[in-house]
Amino acid sequence: MSVIYKRVALIGLGLIAGSMAHAMRRNGLAGEIVGTARSAETRAIALDIGLCDRVVDTPAAAVEGADLVVLAVPVGAMADLAAQIAPHLARGATITDVGSVKRDVVEQVGPHLPDHVHFVPGHPLAGTEHSGPRSGFAELFDNRYTILTPVDSTDPAATARLRDLWTGCGALVEEMEADHHDLVLAVTSHTPHLIAYTMVGVADDLRRVTDSEVIKYSAAGFRDFTRIAASDPTMWRDVFLSNKDATLEILGRFTEELFALQRAIRTGDGDHLHEYFTRTRAIRRGIIEAGQDTDAPNFGREVARKENKG
Amino acid sequence: MSVIYKRVALIGLGLIAGSMAHAMRRNGLAGEIVGTARSAETRAIALDIGLCDRVVDTPAAAVEGADLVVLAVPVGAMADLAAQIAPHLARGATITDVGSVKRDVVEQVGPHLPDHVHFVPGHPLAGTEHSGPRSGFAELFDNRYTILTPVDSTDPAATARLRDLWTGCGALVEEMEADHHDLVLAVTSHTPHLIAYTMVGVADDLRRVTDSEVIKYSAAGFRDFTRIAASDPTMWRDVFLSNKDATLEILGRFTEELFALQRAIRTGDGDHLHEYFTRTRAIRRGIIEAGQDTDAPNFGREVARKENKG
Repeated sequence: MSVIYKRVALIGLGLIAGSMAHAMRRNGLAGEIVGTARSAETRAIALDIGLCDRVVDTPAAAVEGADLVVLAVPVGAMADLAAQIAPHLARGATITDVGSVKRDVVEQVGPHLPDHVHFVPGHPLAGTEHSGPRSGFAELFDNRYTILTPVDSTDPAATARLRDLWTGCGALVEEMEADHHDLVLAVTSHTPHLIAYTMVGVADDLRRVTDSEVIKYSAAGFRDFTRIAASDPTMWRDVFLSNKDATLEILGRFTEELFALQRAIRTGDGDHLHEYFTRTRAIRRGIIEAGQDTDAPNFGREVARKENKG
Repeated sequence: MSVIYKRVALIGLGLIAGSMAHAMRRNGLAGEIVGTARSAETRAIALDIGLCDRVVDTPAAAVEGADLVVLAVPVGAMADLAAQIAPHLARGATITDVGSVKRDVVEQVGPHLPDHVHFVPGHPLAGTEHSGPRSGFAELFDNRYTILTPVDSTDPAATARLRDLWTGCGALVEEMEADHHDLVLAVTSHTPHLIAYTMVGVADDLRRVTDSEVIKYSAAGFRDFTRIAASDPTMWRDVFLSNKDATLEILGRFTEELFALQRAIRTGDGDHLHEYFTRTRAIRRGIIEAGQDTDAPNFGREVARKENKG
């Protein structure tokens, strides 16, 4: 593949930006990759592992002469960042982001940007429970969806070019309205994360079942929840605060449904339970057929053995 | 290793019994393995793939002369099964089960058993989202815990012998009271499963977000829930009905905690959210250090690619 952007500025060097750097290099999509991060330690690590071609100290320096600027910081930090970089953006540059919420980013970032740049909000639906500059890898986006939510004034050519970058990084690209994105993600990501955090918190909090029992017997289902409950706390705090309405709506549906199942348990309504548990199997099959998860038992995971058994 | 039981009768030939057959053979723990299942199709498959040394048509025939009888059917079917086999049990035989609930099994099965047998209820905390006679494999119990809940009258020698069998199958073995088991499992298994079923049901049920969107964008967290929500519906119906009190108790704690987080989202209390999300990371680390899950990103799963991209 050929170079799509001559200079890409990555602001924030965590899992997503780091993986973008690796993926862009894999296919030679960027002439130069310039990176920066708020923490000096992160910048030092990025320099040390050669994550970018250049690591600079400030967002203003990073965006200098860049034809693509990627905002890869927690959603709550986007507005300040946009205000900081605005005076330094090159004419005709494309500004995108990788935030998990889109309406709020449009509202927080958009007003700061000058008319001479293109704003194409985006969200790669990919991640792991790890974070930081060392956690990225080139394959993260392979066969995963990236959603772009261009605003009305966005030049379609700028959107098409960013789409090419994501396709080059291995992703499948879709476009939709920011509000619809936020509702879809409230279902497929935000509410599941909140529920997982809650379940893990409850387990940690019980006095009659010890943490060591929770840990030893976690393979019975619980451990699946702990993976997503190990995700970055700052990122997730910002997601819930900035996608409040959609998350609360889906949470409302969730508790309604949970109470119905709880009542079925209390009243011994086995038919209701059986019918419900049968229906949910179909969704799993759909996900596997769509290539969005593995059919291998237990996700095909290998489990490290304890050194001392028993 | 050497033979621990001369003849093992497996009643019910699903994931757990099938994996026991494979694991016992791997280490030569059983002189002969006799199996039976209610469905003629399951028995035919078991015969076809050589799962057991002999496949017989009835539980009564299976237990004939067996020194270990394993009840591997849904918890709701245990009482009838115990009544059926009771007159045919060999003197001195050990009767165990693999049910996910223990107090109910003790109460349902115990009264049917004659005095001349040993009753050692058990529960291997291992499984996958697959079921049926083809789903078993020898490594399922490796480094996973099996909990035994012997009753007051159980001969310690019978418990020790069953413990040896499970250790030989690769498991780590613990003993505890049936009631405590049921509470621990309500936390580490039953409530997580109910919550996962609920979340998948909600996603399936929304009109404003299509099933195809839920499937395409599932990698953002949701797909983790669909795995356990694809487990066997009959087994899980029986689990909730027979561990009603402990499940309802933990569900109560869960909704209390969820409402507190929901309020924090509504009121914009970012500190509460951040503190909560930080605390839950520690549990994940404990599970990985205990060898009960992998540290590989996304459980190390490989995802099949779609044939046609885009």
